[in-house]
Amino acid sequence: MDIGIIGGSGYTGGELLRLLAQHPEANVAAVTSRRLKGQDVSRTHRHLGKIYDLKFEDLTPQEIAGRTDIVFTAVPHGTAMQVVPGLIDAGVKVIDLSADYRLQTDVFEKTYNLKHTDPRKTVYGIPELHPEVAEQSFIANPGCYPTGASLAAAPLADSGLIDHVVFDSKSGISGAGADPSQVSHYPNMAENIQAYKLTTHRHRAEIVQELSRLDNSLKGISFTPHVIPSVRGILTTAHIFLKEQTGKEEVGRIYNDFYGDKPFIRLTDAVPMLGNVRGSNFCDIGFEVEKDSNRIVVVSAIDNLVKGASGQAIQNMNLMFGLDETTGLWTPGIAP
Amino acid sequence: MDIGIIGGSGYTGGELLRLLAQHPEANVAAVTSRRLKGQDVSRTHRHLGKIYDLKFEDLTPQEIAGRTDIVFTAVPHGTAMQVVPGLIDAGVKVIDLSADYRLQTDVFEKTYNLKHTDPRKTVYGIPELHPEVAEQSFIANPGCYPTGASLAAAPLADSGLIDHVVFDSKSGISGAGADPSQVSHYPNMAENIQAYKLTTHRHRAEIVQELSRLDNSLKGISFTPHVIPSVRGILTTAHIFLKEQTGKEEVGRIYNDFYGDKPFIRLTDAVPMLGNVRGSNFCDIGFEVEKDSNRIVVVSAIDNLVKGASGQAIQNMNLMFGLDETTGLWTPGIAP
Amino acid sequence: MDIGIIGGSGYTGGELLRLLAQHPEANVAAVTSRRLKGQDVSRTHRHLGKIYDLKFEDLTPQEIAGRTDIVFTAVPHGTAMQVVPGLIDAGVKVIDLSADYRLQTDVFEKTYNLKHTDPRKTVYGIPELHPEVAEQSFIANPGCYPTGASLAAAPLADSGLIDHVVFDSKSGISGAGADPSQVSHYPNMAENIQAYKLTTHRHRAEIVQELSRLDNSLKGISFTPHVIPSVRGILTTAHIFLKEQTGKEEVGRIYNDFYGDKPFIRLTDAVPMLGNVRGSNFCDIGFEVEKDSNRIVVVSAIDNLVKGASGQAIQNMNLMFGLDETTGLWTPGIAP
Amino acid sequence: MDIGIIGGSGYTGGELLRLLAQHPEANVAAVTSRRLKGQDVSRTHRHLGKIYDLKFEDLTPQEIAGRTDIVFTAVPHGTAMQVVPGLIDAGVKVIDLSADYRLQTDVFEKTYNLKHTDPRKTVYGIPELHPEVAEQSFIANPGCYPTGASLAAAPLADSGLIDHVVFDSKSGISGAGADPSQVSHYPNMAENIQAYKLTTHRHRAEIVQELSRLDNSLKGISFTPHVIPSVRGILTTAHIFLKEQTGKEEVGRIYNDFYGDKPFIRLTDAVPMLGNVRGSNFCDIGFEVEKDSNRIVVVSAIDNLVKGASGQAIQNMNLMFGLDETTGLWTPGIAP
Repeated sequence: MDIGIIGGSGYTGGELLRLLAQHPEANVAAVTSRRLKGQDVSRTHRHLGKIYDLKFEDLTPQEIAGRTDIVFTAVPHGTAMQVVPGLIDAGVKVIDLSADYRLQTDVFEKTYNLKHTDPRKTVYGIPELHPEVAEQSFIANPGCYPTGASLAAAPLADSGLIDHVVFDSKSGISGAGADPSQVSHYPNMAENIQAYKLTTHRHRAEIVQELSRLDNSLKGISFTPHVIPSVRGILTTAHIFLKEQTGKEEVGRIYNDFYGDKPFIRLTDAVPMLGNVRGSNFCDIGFEVEKDSNRIVVVSAIDNLVKGASGQAIQNMNLMFGLDETTGLWTPGIAP
Repeated sequence: MDIGIIGGSGYTGGELLRLLAQHPEANVAAVTSRRLKGQDVSRTHRHLGKIYDLKFEDLTPQEIAGRTDIVFTAVPHGTAMQVVPGLIDAGVKVIDLSADYRLQTDVFEKTYNLKHTDPRKTVYGIPELHPEVAEQSFIANPGCYPTGASLAAAPLADSGLIDHVVFDSKSGISGAGADPSQVSHYPNMAENIQAYKLTTHRHRAEIVQELSRLDNSLKGISFTPHVIPSVRGILTTAHIFLKEQTGKEEVGRIYNDFYGDKPFIRLTDAVPMLGNVRGSNFCDIGFEVEKDSNRIVVVSAIDNLVKGASGQAIQNMNLMFGLDETTGLWTPGIAP
Repeated sequence: MDIGIIGGSGYTGGELLRLLAQHPEANVAAVTSRRLKGQDVSRTHRHLGKIYDLKFEDLTPQEIAGRTDIVFTAVPHGTAMQVVPGLIDAGVKVIDLSADYRLQTDVFEKTYNLKHTDPRKTVYGIPELHPEVAEQSFIANPGCYPTGASLAAAPLADSGLIDHVVFDSKSGISGAGADPSQVSHYPNMAENIQAYKLTTHRHRAEIVQELSRLDNSLKGISFTPHVIPSVRGILTTAHIFLKEQTGKEEVGRIYNDFYGDKPFIRLTDAVPMLGNVRGSNFCDIGFEVEKDSNRIVVVSAIDNLVKGASGQAIQNMNLMFGLDETTGLWTPGIAP
Repeated sequence: MDIGIIGGSGYTGGELLRLLAQHPEANVAAVTSRRLKGQDVSRTHRHLGKIYDLKFEDLTPQEIAGRTDIVFTAVPHGTAMQVVPGLIDAGVKVIDLSADYRLQTDVFEKTYNLKHTDPRKTVYGIPELHPEVAEQSFIANPGCYPTGASLAAAPLADSGLIDHVVFDSKSGISGAGADPSQVSHYPNMAENIQAYKLTTHRHRAEIVQELSRLDNSLKGISFTPHVIPSVRGILTTAHIFLKEQTGKEEVGRIYNDFYGDKPFIRLTDAVPMLGNVRGSNFCDIGFEVEKDSNRIVVVSAIDNLVKGASGQAIQNMNLMFGLDETTGLWTPGIAP
């Protein structure tokens, strides 16, 4: 497969390159960056030195489509909708890593306060929840928080047992991107933790969409994000209030049945943690049932740049091309 | 005041020494450690070099009481109850930093699975919630998590508005003490976050005690702790479900009325964070009301070793001796 | 004393405020920031909330001099020389925290590639090396790296024993200031260490000036700085090659004689580390003599924002006003 | 190839497993741990969950040799010499990751203060310096510090230009192993840096051996290690004093000639840093020539667990089996 990446200078672009370097069927044919046109990719992504001998290019959708079988768009929301139509019209497969196509158009416009210029039906690319990914030529790749949150609660939502749920998520700061800011300034982030957008983060809309699809009677979905002094990873603590008390064995059976054969889901007796999934496409999930209570605490851990972004995009690509979904992704995390 | 510290080799002992060094009325007369008897205090606490010229001693309660006006017991739970009676009998004022006297005896015995050998009535030393501290000669100093959680939710509990609340707390690893362990091993803790005792942490009993006292109709109190890659601090994210929707102004008024004149409570429009309270006795509190919802997210930030332990103990001491509660504690946090 | 701070929005300004809050003789009368004029100081420095009730002002040198006894200038190099003459002419005492007055004019102009508009003789304010600080009304406060390096090597330089020395210094990232940059971006700094300006850092000129003053036959002074994933602190590893092998006792005697009565120097048998001086004005110094060799490794640890900047400035202020140099500074570091 | 690992519960064992999971010719046939016998390998190394379905075994050298083509010994020094002879006698290839066979017997015994029970000639396995690795059936895998230091200075040593050199090395704390200690305790290591064994670290003997082999007239080799708040990586700052001033171009030519075709050496114009080599087998090297001086500062960056241990071991294995040395190792580092 010849692969194109539009917007290759950021973290998700760099992570696509890192992961594709280990993919036996992938050949990265073009990487674009308007700003860095003509520069070596490995000058921006120095960890890729000697691995790639590529330069950033400035290409139109038609040009990049002409040289590739699939294009990943790793651009800001609002920009993707300007690029994707041209790619699709040129007949290339597309996976969009931005937020532009993840939500129903009306929900998108309200959430992002932005007119959508290319309303279009797609599949939301969490393969564990959307097996129909395999038949698509265009996929909206999910947000990082919604991936961790949806995977944590989906089995119980699907079983119709949830009354309401509070997602308290903790993300590594790489989720905020490669551009320096006050929040990412080391003296501000080290030895700290910052809650933000306590009740208004845009990713909530994706979680609501996915869990409501599984159980449209679900009464409440709350979501509060934090950034922690970690580069990578999202730990989601899902405080789930069930309609009735449910025992540990029953909950375990529900998760096992739901995820039984999914390669990247690791159900665990231990409490999941970022250190076990760093650099990998795994989503570790564990839970504990509160005694004499209808609350269950489910914890999921992912690498925000892999299962939360570029790894999941490659997993989608594999399925779209009829490959095993683990191709090129069956690598362990890096620990310690 | 001549002050004694029983168990001075750990973090709360060291923090008492650090803070008392700046207290105009305090003279540390004795510090005990059976293991380090005869050694310079500043050999264990090297940051105290040249500040103190003290050696660890091994003293009976009677001996230390004979040389001091007040004794802080900074020993493990189960040990304090063996020491405190002797101190009280010897007529010295006592502040116990362990868990032994914080709970009703029956609750303690169930929570800690331990027979209490010295059942005794005390006051739970959060001065903002217990003004009666000032008349006591013996105080049970609260746990770190309960301090942050109780202060975050007390005004709403007191107003009778809370239906149920989920406390999702994030603590610096110094809360686990000075002894190395797998959890505190740098390669395990760095770039990580660990949820633990998802539904069973013992500190929940203290939170329940304090909030139920303010509103005994409160339906549910959940508590899930995490450790984060930070040495100090506890950030508590309180997901509070109210009985009815309540506006931002009304909530603000409730907090202002409740805490108006309390020096160490800083109500803030910004989201509180650990970086602003590190090393200080302040508790920063902020909140956001979710739109079209009865959920409010309240965030509190404290330094677990100061307001969550040794600083609050000194605040209690000040009140017990008729001093202004800020004496020796009116120092800003250290930032960045 | 009424105190003014010109340029109070950065880290050294914030640290002056933090430290002066604990100084019994100090009253901060004015803090300037052109950009933040009219805003609460505690909105920028949130850790100072409730401690100060001050607003940033935009004042001329004459105006601030009219309201104060001493002014600290915490502005970038090149700016100080535009402000200092007016302050001095207005008769106020001045401590300049910039680089403008630390070097001989010709050395400054070559090192900073900048014409000096106010050549003027001053004293270089490391009080342990310059007791004449006490008679001055204008002091050039030293750079952070030169403070750690000069204090580590001064006794041996003074004894005439040094052949050449390599300073390998490791600084916390707060030394780069409060403005975000690629280097201070958390994902770039965490789990990393960056050597920079391997042979060309401007602070070398200050080290050369101070050590050559003690021994003008010194043959070589090399300096290579690094930033490490720490907010505060500078650890200096001084690889000192002596003219001849010198025993441990002799070296110890030299350091003791040189620093014997200096309150902020702590000579230690252990290897100094940042964790013991954080937040304090101490400089910890230790050393080891290499067996069968004329190399000695001396290690010094300071807090770059305290002894390396604002704390030392206050130490200088104390001396200039005839106070004990420890006034308001005799506080232990914060550990852990 | 069927592979055995003796001592698989530590960091180097875990890293061998992580890297071998991506090696197309490798099959891990046996992993031993006396303590964890019978337990799932992925219970200790949770990041390897679903990747390996192996249990720790307790095997004699003969047993493990009977099931494998090559055995890695990842055991403490002193233990390897008890295991290696049996393996070699059983006819299996061996790579020892301990210190036991890295030094001449007399130097080993003096350095480690331990009688060697199996004196035996081997090759020191830095393949870039020892192409004869390819003909061996037993290799002593080098220490982490010596790998970074030797690779930084070898070209200049080989050219006979070095007068003396000071290696100031900064290591991630994973180098201290998986067992918790005071040094690795998060509150002690975070926001800190610790110099240790300022002049007496045992790894110096390996550096001396390797550089003296290239230039036996070399006058002085100093080495001072530090641990920094990073899990992985070693940054070596080599302060090299040449016999005469040598220009940048000439030095560049020497490094290019020496390393020209070595795949894992990346010569760079930028200053190398840990963040670019994390998780990879690369050694990045850069340098700067001091103006008007005979000092050159060379900086090298490696991942201590990969090029400094397990990755280099696999590189040696590849060569011993006639494979391309990059087989299974041609993966980029993980960044950010």
